[in-house]
Amino acid sequence: MVTIALDAMGGDNAPKAEVEGAIQAARSLPVKVILVGREDVLKRELDQQDWSGLPIEIKHASEVITMEDAAAKAMRAKRDSSIRVASRLVRDGAAQGVVSAGNTGAVMATAKMVQGMVPGVDRPALASAFPTLTGRPVVVVDVGANVDCDARLLAQFAVMGDIYSRVIFKTDRPKVGLLSIGEEEHKGNDLTRSATPLLKSLPLNFVGNVEGRDIYSGATDVIVCDGFVGNVALKVSEGLVDVFKHMLQESLKATLTRQLGYVLSRSAFADFKKRVDYSEFGGAPLLGVRGVCIISHGRSTPKAIKNAIRVAAEFAGARINQHIEDELARWTTTNGNGAHA
Amino acid sequence: MVTIALDAMGGDNAPKAEVEGAIQAARSLPVKVILVGREDVLKRELDQQDWSGLPIEIKHASEVITMEDAAAKAMRAKRDSSIRVASRLVRDGAAQGVVSAGNTGAVMATAKMVQGMVPGVDRPALASAFPTLTGRPVVVVDVGANVDCDARLLAQFAVMGDIYSRVIFKTDRPKVGLLSIGEEEHKGNDLTRSATPLLKSLPLNFVGNVEGRDIYSGATDVIVCDGFVGNVALKVSEGLVDVFKHMLQESLKATLTRQLGYVLSRSAFADFKKRVDYSEFGGAPLLGVRGVCIISHGRSTPKAIKNAIRVAAEFAGARINQHIEDELARWTTTNGNGAHA
Repeated sequence: MVTIALDAMGGDNAPKAEVEGAIQAARSLPVKVILVGREDVLKRELDQQDWSGLPIEIKHASEVITMEDAAAKAMRAKRDSSIRVASRLVRDGAAQGVVSAGNTGAVMATAKMVQGMVPGVDRPALASAFPTLTGRPVVVVDVGANVDCDARLLAQFAVMGDIYSRVIFKTDRPKVGLLSIGEEEHKGNDLTRSATPLLKSLPLNFVGNVEGRDIYSGATDVIVCDGFVGNVALKVSEGLVDVFKHMLQESLKATLTRQLGYVLSRSAFADFKKRVDYSEFGGAPLLGVRGVCIISHGRSTPKAIKNAIRVAAEFAGARINQHIEDELARWTTTNGNGAHA
Repeated sequence: MVTIALDAMGGDNAPKAEVEGAIQAARSLPVKVILVGREDVLKRELDQQDWSGLPIEIKHASEVITMEDAAAKAMRAKRDSSIRVASRLVRDGAAQGVVSAGNTGAVMATAKMVQGMVPGVDRPALASAFPTLTGRPVVVVDVGANVDCDARLLAQFAVMGDIYSRVIFKTDRPKVGLLSIGEEEHKGNDLTRSATPLLKSLPLNFVGNVEGRDIYSGATDVIVCDGFVGNVALKVSEGLVDVFKHMLQESLKATLTRQLGYVLSRSAFADFKKRVDYSEFGGAPLLGVRGVCIISHGRSTPKAIKNAIRVAAEFAGARINQHIEDELARWTTTNGNGAHA
């Protein structure tokens, strides 16, 4: 059975959402969950639920890094933070993956320092799987870990995203696109123009520039971009989901006929919400660190936490970061001019 | 009556969409439209419609800049392009505004060179009004004209966006936000961190960082970002609109009960589509050039062209770029440390 260390103090709804999510995961999935955080707080929260017989443990950590903390400073000051203790469990082999809904910068810096990097990768990248019209998710890398990038980092994102798509979604020869503002090669910014020749030189199925509207079309399997742009794309999408739900409900409620339509269509809403709901997707893997690290949304619900634990277990089983290491090592041998040259 | 010069050869559906849009505009709005492009082609297209008695003229231009042309090169090579001739009509006072659905880079470069810049503005910016939950549109600047920006440019975008919101949407003391990846001031990239102190120093109602999901909430009236990020945000939104329509129709059709719901809700869809449809919004104004320049989507329909003509007439009436010039001049006098220092 896979063991996942859960930073139980990180999210906006911590520790309640984390504890409930852990219970849901331990009940429905073949995983053991180690809740990491203040023992007394977690014990009290757990005891409000029925968790008898479930594979759940508590590991004490005395400190918490908040959303307001500057990542680097908090890392130095809080050596017994819940995220750091959770990350150590992975480093020491007591867990195969860590899940946190906490301060993204701090989680990333901690995973990088404590778990260590895959050789050949300069900086870990946050990947997110977006739903598409084709039903096959598209992997977008990076969605917030690296806000100022160079061409070499984008090339590493492409390599990692390609492996993610192949290993997790079983995509054969994933189509890799570069997020830009026009399909033509000259349309973009300094970064995309400098990344294009490097991406072309890699042994990937690189299809050139794609635009923001192509993310959801499913025309590509992997899209690379700097983490600032990827994060904006992700959050614009979240915001728009809320707007659509609101607008549609208003429109449907506006007349009596529509009220009837609304009642009849209610079950359709449930499907719809499920397909676009961020919590269904269960967090974003941090690619390029040793072991597994899944970063969940700060506002994660228990269901989102449960799904993040599911994703962590899946990544641990697939040994994705080992695949990245092997691939980069293979390229070094055959091609000195690769993404990590 | 306001006269608008329409680049009739620029869009993906040119000249058909342009000619039909011009006819719709001339029929329903108090504007005169000058169609600019190949006279024989435009005459033939016009004569397939009923346009007798409408205030429409043709101005011949022998060349066309295509979407594939590199902007700077096309500007030098094609001195009699439809966009250039249209822009000259504004410079010479024969029209008060120009509308084009053509190559954005070429339209921008042409407007800048031919119409000239408002003193105090370094580069023209493309602004877009996004619908929000509150019903009051939010102005996003820049959405594609300037892909690599510095802090000073973002400050100029803020000044221009503020005036746009005040003049066109009658917003009292618009809330101006900086698009970033977290609300806390330290969350962002090099650009946002360097822009923050400058934005704080301006006599604007600057509210700090906003995230992608805040665009549609209506919590701010103006959002500034570099044109690469703004363009991605715009196009992600467009793509998501298509996905939602598709998903919802599928969900609603999935069962017999839902089919009934679908029939009853069909009129609601019409409302919904209208509120999110890009063509309703009628193109993006290029702020900071003398006179008016409205850039429409390459895929513009006749309706989108008509709406762009309506927006151009509205901007010409409000003399928005004159407001920008006055405001910047006022700041120079009172504060040597402004956005254009």
